[in-house]
Amino acid sequence: MEVENRYVAVRHHVEGFPSEEDFEVKKVKMRWTPESGEVLVRNLYLSMDPYQLNRMKRRSASHLAVDGIVPGERIESYGAGEVVASACEEYKAGDVVAGVLGWEDYTLFLPSPGVLMSKLAASDDDLPLSHHLSALGTSGMTAYAGFYEVCRPQRGEKVFVSAASGSVGSLVGQFAKLAGCYVVGCAGSNAKVDLVKNQLGFDEAFNYKEELDMRSALKRYFPDGIDIYFDNVGGETLEAALSSMNTYGRVALCGVISEYTDASRRAAPDLLEVIYKRITIRGFFAWDFLTRFGEFTGIIGDLIRQEKVQVIEDISDGLESVPSAFTALFRGENIGKKIVKLA
Amino acid sequence: MEVENRYVAVRHHVEGFPSEEDFEVKKVKMRWTPESGEVLVRNLYLSMDPYQLNRMKRRSASHLAVDGIVPGERIESYGAGEVVASACEEYKAGDVVAGVLGWEDYTLFLPSPGVLMSKLAASDDDLPLSHHLSALGTSGMTAYAGFYEVCRPQRGEKVFVSAASGSVGSLVGQFAKLAGCYVVGCAGSNAKVDLVKNQLGFDEAFNYKEELDMRSALKRYFPDGIDIYFDNVGGETLEAALSSMNTYGRVALCGVISEYTDASRRAAPDLLEVIYKRITIRGFFAWDFLTRFGEFTGIIGDLIRQEKVQVIEDISDGLESVPSAFTALFRGENIGKKIVKLA
Repeated sequence: MEVENRYVAVRHHVEGFPSEEDFEVKKVKMRWTPESGEVLVRNLYLSMDPYQLNRMKRRSASHLAVDGIVPGERIESYGAGEVVASACEEYKAGDVVAGVLGWEDYTLFLPSPGVLMSKLAASDDDLPLSHHLSALGTSGMTAYAGFYEVCRPQRGEKVFVSAASGSVGSLVGQFAKLAGCYVVGCAGSNAKVDLVKNQLGFDEAFNYKEELDMRSALKRYFPDGIDIYFDNVGGETLEAALSSMNTYGRVALCGVISEYTDASRRAAPDLLEVIYKRITIRGFFAWDFLTRFGEFTGIIGDLIRQEKVQVIEDISDGLESVPSAFTALFRGENIGKKIVKLA
Repeated sequence: MEVENRYVAVRHHVEGFPSEEDFEVKKVKMRWTPESGEVLVRNLYLSMDPYQLNRMKRRSASHLAVDGIVPGERIESYGAGEVVASACEEYKAGDVVAGVLGWEDYTLFLPSPGVLMSKLAASDDDLPLSHHLSALGTSGMTAYAGFYEVCRPQRGEKVFVSAASGSVGSLVGQFAKLAGCYVVGCAGSNAKVDLVKNQLGFDEAFNYKEELDMRSALKRYFPDGIDIYFDNVGGETLEAALSSMNTYGRVALCGVISEYTDASRRAAPDLLEVIYKRITIRGFFAWDFLTRFGEFTGIIGDLIRQEKVQVIEDISDGLESVPSAFTALFRGENIGKKIVKLA
């Protein structure tokens, strides 16, 4: 079988803020044969994740864990799709899958234990397929593992979440409420603040762009200090959070989006504070908890069905919208998980 | 009983590098009465610790955990001495004690569970009294707890220690060898490097002042990367260590001496590296392990008796030498634990 496959590529390595002109849509013929052992998937939803920007750089610490993206070539990405042809017993045409696909119309993959791909069970049918890219995908796993396993919250603790309306932050805050914590989020627009506070049930939220000084904002919202900071942004927000942190505070370092586009915005934390407050700062990412993927997404699925957790998604249409959808992440234009739905 | 007590005070808050002129020796009469419940100690050895400089500043994160030092007033410090008068059953004249005393000839203290003071047992008599300020005091506890409890070393892991000839670093490196690790230290003079490598048994050591670039030095000494960094200095050494760190590396943040005298030298770590290598950075200090003081110093004492650990001390004479002994710490002039012996 042969299909015409369109894929999104970067024209060159991308440093600093990405723009739509950094991307192009290319076309190739993609051939599936029964002898290949491969599975051909028509992609239905693609995940837009800020960390992909680091993969597009010539050099980045992210290359230690995830392959760099080669200009002109296809870009692997989490997604969901429908099997159209399969040379492997495990999958058959019509199966719906979620896992590592690509920013393209079709993806060919060779099933192996190293490939992250889940065949979606019939019991998941009551939840929208797009959720498998957000709360039931890597964002959900990042939020769940990061909050429960890395932060190890106790009832009554004070939790601060940056990028609180984002795919991960919006879940972390809801988990924190379920865990009996006091939780405050910050975000970059009043609409996001409203969502976080009035729809997702955070105790408080504020627009960091309207604060002259992040340190005083945090002192106002955390009169009793911060016990847990779930960091999605790095930079001065991290510095400020450390200065409001309580003894034995924990920082889960999930992302540093402020530094992805501008390495000069690196946080220079007051390490004396880290020592005297005995703070633990721990970097992590979802892959570390892959063996527990089923456990975590099972729990999250139940929470969604019980309406204890809301899933916020921001969906664009069509492969050609990938460049604008992706670059919008760095302008803070998305609310919740940014997803591209293919035709 | 009344004694004439000389004590060392700061004339004013000290910011930046300390100089001997920042200090003065003052004299007061000190009165002990049997009704007071107090114990009067004649001090024999005083501990010189870099962290005291932070206490001398007008503002410092250290004030969160340790009281600031008030100009003109006596300065609490770890020390050892001999009881000369006691109004409490637990102590009697002639007892030798180690604990929180002061930079002064005599210290009066009121025994209570909150006061860190050990009466030295007869079984300790074979070890020099000064050791109770170094390997058997807070330096030893910091090194032991920091290495074993915070770093949690595994046999074969690669350990980097900064300020390797210092009171804590010299012990950490020896503990790392005992734990079956590969250990490299850095220090600020060739004499220190020689001591660390040829006398204390570190696998390698280097003079950071002779390295153009700390990152390349670490790549040279750690071709297989660093698993554990025991950080006594902060600044660019921490940044470089993170860049050579392996996945799941651990940083025990014990001190940041490069930042005590110059806050502008703050480390700005590459947080992407911390995330993608899943590094844990943890601040700690010895007080956190106070309940295990006896256990740790018991083990260290045995290691010293079995000649498995060497104790490096740098002893100055007389109370009037406190200002030069203390300021020498920040010029890197001490080798091992800096102690002042009183007449």
